[in-house]
Amino acid sequence: MAEASAGGRTRSGGRRGRRGGGDSETVAAVEQPAWRQPRSPYMPVAAVSADQLEAIHQASLTVLEEIGIDILSDEAKSILKAAGADVAVDGDRVRFDRALVEQSLGKAPPEFTLHARNPDHSLKIGGAWIANCSVGSAPNAHDMEGGRRPGNSADFLNFVKLIQQLNIVHIIGGYPVEPLDRHPSIRHLDCLSDFVTMTDKVFHAYSLGRERILDGIEIARIARGIDDKTLEREPSLMTIVNSNSPLKLDEPMCGGIIEMARRNQVVVLTPFTLAGAMAPVTVAGAVTQQNAEALAGLVLSQSVRPGAPFVYGGFTSNVDMKSGAPAFGTPEYMQSALLGGQLSRRYGLPYRSSNVCAANTVDAQAAYESVFSLWGATMGGVNILKHGAGWMEGGLQASFEKMVLDADLLQMVAAFLTPLEVNDDTMAIDAMREVGPGGHFFGAAHTMERYSTAFYSPMISDWRNYEAWQEAGSPTAYEKANRLYKQLLVEYEQPPIDNAVREELEAFVARRKEEGGAPTDF
Amino acid sequence: MAEASAGGRTRSGGRRGRRGGGDSETVAAVEQPAWRQPRSPYMPVAAVSADQLEAIHQASLTVLEEIGIDILSDEAKSILKAAGADVAVDGDRVRFDRALVEQSLGKAPPEFTLHARNPDHSLKIGGAWIANCSVGSAPNAHDMEGGRRPGNSADFLNFVKLIQQLNIVHIIGGYPVEPLDRHPSIRHLDCLSDFVTMTDKVFHAYSLGRERILDGIEIARIARGIDDKTLEREPSLMTIVNSNSPLKLDEPMCGGIIEMARRNQVVVLTPFTLAGAMAPVTVAGAVTQQNAEALAGLVLSQSVRPGAPFVYGGFTSNVDMKSGAPAFGTPEYMQSALLGGQLSRRYGLPYRSSNVCAANTVDAQAAYESVFSLWGATMGGVNILKHGAGWMEGGLQASFEKMVLDADLLQMVAAFLTPLEVNDDTMAIDAMREVGPGGHFFGAAHTMERYSTAFYSPMISDWRNYEAWQEAGSPTAYEKANRLYKQLLVEYEQPPIDNAVREELEAFVARRKEEGGAPTDF
Repeated sequence: MAEASAGGRTRSGGRRGRRGGGDSETVAAVEQPAWRQPRSPYMPVAAVSADQLEAIHQASLTVLEEIGIDILSDEAKSILKAAGADVAVDGDRVRFDRALVEQSLGKAPPEFTLHARNPDHSLKIGGAWIANCSVGSAPNAHDMEGGRRPGNSADFLNFVKLIQQLNIVHIIGGYPVEPLDRHPSIRHLDCLSDFVTMTDKVFHAYSLGRERILDGIEIARIARGIDDKTLEREPSLMTIVNSNSPLKLDEPMCGGIIEMARRNQVVVLTPFTLAGAMAPVTVAGAVTQQNAEALAGLVLSQSVRPGAPFVYGGFTSNVDMKSGAPAFGTPEYMQSALLGGQLSRRYGLPYRSSNVCAANTVDAQAAYESVFSLWGATMGGVNILKHGAGWMEGGLQASFEKMVLDADLLQMVAAFLTPLEVNDDTMAIDAMREVGPGGHFFGAAHTMERYSTAFYSPMISDWRNYEAWQEAGSPTAYEKANRLYKQLLVEYEQPPIDNAVREELEAFVARRKEEGGAPTDF
Repeated sequence: MAEASAGGRTRSGGRRGRRGGGDSETVAAVEQPAWRQPRSPYMPVAAVSADQLEAIHQASLTVLEEIGIDILSDEAKSILKAAGADVAVDGDRVRFDRALVEQSLGKAPPEFTLHARNPDHSLKIGGAWIANCSVGSAPNAHDMEGGRRPGNSADFLNFVKLIQQLNIVHIIGGYPVEPLDRHPSIRHLDCLSDFVTMTDKVFHAYSLGRERILDGIEIARIARGIDDKTLEREPSLMTIVNSNSPLKLDEPMCGGIIEMARRNQVVVLTPFTLAGAMAPVTVAGAVTQQNAEALAGLVLSQSVRPGAPFVYGGFTSNVDMKSGAPAFGTPEYMQSALLGGQLSRRYGLPYRSSNVCAANTVDAQAAYESVFSLWGATMGGVNILKHGAGWMEGGLQASFEKMVLDADLLQMVAAFLTPLEVNDDTMAIDAMREVGPGGHFFGAAHTMERYSTAFYSPMISDWRNYEAWQEAGSPTAYEKANRLYKQLLVEYEQPPIDNAVREELEAFVARRKEEGGAPTDF
């Protein structure tokens, strides 16, 4: 698989897949499978029976009809009123009758393409397809040497480089870490410019006021070098809208839904329903509330533009009832992940789940909570996996080492999702005949033909025997990830970009900065 | 939930469930859910289509018919010959025609009870039931302070105590670590005596020559205080038989199958098929071979006694093709685990899988490989989970810390497998009404009634915020597990045992030692 790169340098990833070799002074390049989007061959796992699912659906409709949602946006209220919702005369409460919700179902597409500026990196969203996002919105960055520090531009830029390098990370899922040294009025302009110029992957823009989301849509259009009409036909930007649980949607979030739906861009509505805190203490109750909030967002989006792409987000987890601390990757999280997937399939909507943990360091806990959440998400039929790589500490920390370790986990999941080939060749009766009872397969022709690509070769896992491992200094997975992330940064290469695109982007950003950027009073 | 124990001491586990409190000089007892056997509410996940499954079944039959198996036991050969197999005149090769194999299917029970001397600890094997075993047969023990050392009696006894204390470990799955200071001729007598007196759980005996397995059967009978006929009606002992892959069964293994089947005790036939080494380099090929070997064992067992309990074991993993090192908890391992479960269900047999990893220390790798293997096993429909707690380093190491960490993982899986309750009460519309949009659920009546038991409370996971965690010395999960295992040892209490049983056991062991124990020339 290995080939020397033209310039004698070694590097990983990119469209050209694995690299190795190069001149003798460079370290061997990080090896990883070429860019591809996984597709699950497995039937999603149901958490509850069809009757129970229907009960949860009906209970959500009752919540929407009888309790309603507080909608803190005049425009959203008038859109919903026009659609037939019951909007309180004095106040923000909006009640949705059952028929209105049922009418909004079946309009959004079950599957669509989310376009990247590099067409090879465009993504199928929905069906059995999975797209992995990087960690988003962490206030702190962390690595082994530097420890934990508030988000800043240098760390932000390094994370963006890693995201471009890691083939299994398909979407920049927001600012991996908040660059607090960039002023909030222009942060989105600089950060989205960095996404476009430093990567060629799909990206996310924040629904933090209309100006930001409109700037994001324009930047997505410029990045792809297309006109408004094409952009409207081809979704090219994603936003996450977290409802303000319980049962509330604020102005910036409503603005995000409205502007994105209007331009046919992708809204991922994800209620932040921590059972025992912002949602009932039972999984069934928390998911009922999640479902009500998601459906309210769907009604708004489909009232703005029937058929606008809408993704059902599940993020229900529980809190530690002793301390109130949020917990992630728990058994209850896994059950919620399965149940959310079942509901999204009932509505024919793509499903968003996450790779999360509450650990403070990249230890066994970080790994088991992450893999438990991947288990729930994957078997639940996830389509967009948020926070796929780099999330720690309940979202308060983006970790460089965890990003690489997670990329390895995501590659393992992708390998697990590769359909098994079953045919005469793979069933290998001839190889068994050749080797015979008591023999060994190391040298068999069947083995020799396949050994170099037979199995997934992890970036992190140390499979040396104990003595060899001890001689090498008894490295942990955390230490190996530390070495790897730094190597990936050295290997980073900026993807090509059209000069015309770069110039238009620079001009747009300059103009918007002159205008003062976006308001910061949200 | 906490209550002071009668004697003022605190302790964990046992039939009496959680304990806490006690006098002020003792540490808070380790809290864990009461003993129970999990039962999966989820449909197992299929790795391949029905047609592909049939192709693998047919290919296995072809292997048995055309290549055959080397059977290194005269008694096994004559039993198989009498059953209709084609036994080579000069040599050990036995070929099974398709009809013979098909006739052997459907006789072994799909579900049965495996009896412990404490009836509360008896287990359902098969269906959707899961029984977890402790790590078995590791040559080395390890803990944080003592490092890695060859197996010895002191470590053996401490592991046995931990197994009794950890409620989620249902079966002593062999010697957790080999006590090399016990002479091989009498090791089984002393170790099985320890199992019976120090625990009240189901245990395993090794198929290492007939004498050992016969001694094991007798000890299981004595432990339960029953007669031979009752024992024969009520399976009370389990043995693992690893075929000598590829396609070979040796004399001690055949002896184990024959003697156990004859007395209606439980044989778990598990081919040791590492793809690329002892089996073809493809997952489909390695599992085809696994299946042929398992079916050969089934034919032998059912020829000895139709209806004898037989468990289909899957252990197919891959090797690192660069070094030949065995790998565990890999994507290929997960696929094999699903596929093995599908085959076992096709045959109506209970299914054995494992919780395994190749890591050398209790780091992120140990955790992710373990949870990946739990994912494959659980979604594959596992009934007996071997090496559930304590396995490290591809089986070369039993770790005290990993045993406690794994117990926590197994409890999380058990919580994940607890069916979701969906009713008006759990869907909590009234609680949402009470709290309303923008409120919080911490103080709601619905929360207050349920908060203490709402979620699984892990033993290891550290959910404190970063600052509090850092002030506490930044402990890792490994360090927390170290503290916990030592506390569990302090809390260990020997379960009650009838004097008559103890005396009969002592007399039996003394007699067998006088007779010289078992031969050591296997």
